[in-house]
Amino acid sequence: MNPIGTRFALSLAACAALVTGTAQAQSKPEDDIRYRQSVMNVMGRALGPLGAMAQGKAPFNAAVAQKNAMLVDTLLSLPFNAYGPGTDKGAPTKADPKIWSDAARFKQSSEVAQKAAAQLLAASNAGDEARFKAAVGEVGKACKSCHDDFRTKEFRN
Amino acid sequence: MNPIGTRFALSLAACAALVTGTAQAQSKPEDDIRYRQSVMNVMGRALGPLGAMAQGKAPFNAAVAQKNAMLVDTLLSLPFNAYGPGTDKGAPTKADPKIWSDAARFKQSSEVAQKAAAQLLAASNAGDEARFKAAVGEVGKACKSCHDDFRTKEFRN
Repeated sequence: MNPIGTRFALSLAACAALVTGTAQAQSKPEDDIRYRQSVMNVMGRALGPLGAMAQGKAPFNAAVAQKNAMLVDTLLSLPFNAYGPGTDKGAPTKADPKIWSDAARFKQSSEVAQKAAAQLLAASNAGDEARFKAAVGEVGKACKSCHDDFRTKEFRN
Repeated sequence: MNPIGTRFALSLAACAALVTGTAQAQSKPEDDIRYRQSVMNVMGRALGPLGAMAQGKAPFNAAVAQKNAMLVDTLLSLPFNAYGPGTDKGAPTKADPKIWSDAARFKQSSEVAQKAAAQLLAASNAGDEARFKAAVGEVGKACKSCHDDFRTKEFRN
């Protein structure tokens, strides 16, 4: 590797380590748990303005709808690879053991949410307020359904 | 609001509450701190494959480059609104007090990172491996520089 390549590599390695505090190559269960929770946290904030607009608490703003719908759609593609075997414990988590004992239904539930998010993005891109509101509702239902089935009320280790 | 609208609203409110455990309207300092950390955590995982490809540890894959570069670019638009006044404490954080005492330089530093991410996305969209590698290096440098200047080594309250 040439010196410039080496410098780049070092910078990025430093960056990744600084950012996550963990090696990237093989994630530990606690890293996967923290990652899942981080995705959900960022998603929660993206959902806020969407919910407010759908509920008429904020005026419909097509640009905000589009930006946040894109973010929700993207974020929903991320966490479901971080529920691998052995990631049911290792750090405080609300992930229900049914995620692993009923993996097919969990997968199905995640796909319902992803489909709802894709519909929301399409509605937002179309700038269609009525369709947007309905689509936000579907995303909300998908979130709630998955959480009802696969999220425990309290943190467990 | 009609009954269907109400159902949608309830679903989404439930969803947002379930996801974040917090109200969306006015975030508390600890929520902003957790949000910033969550964005950085998700970003760290997106940077992993980019770093591996830039360092030649993984073969260049244009689709992976594009997806992850888009994610990094999007994520970098999020956290810098969550460093408002009063968010320097309230939960363990590595945010350096200089973020608030030298806000102009922090803003500049965040903009350098955002510009580097935009360049990385452009290079990834172009599928240009050499340009991609250089752009990853610039993102790494921007991360490191901002962390060196504005991130403490240890958590503080």
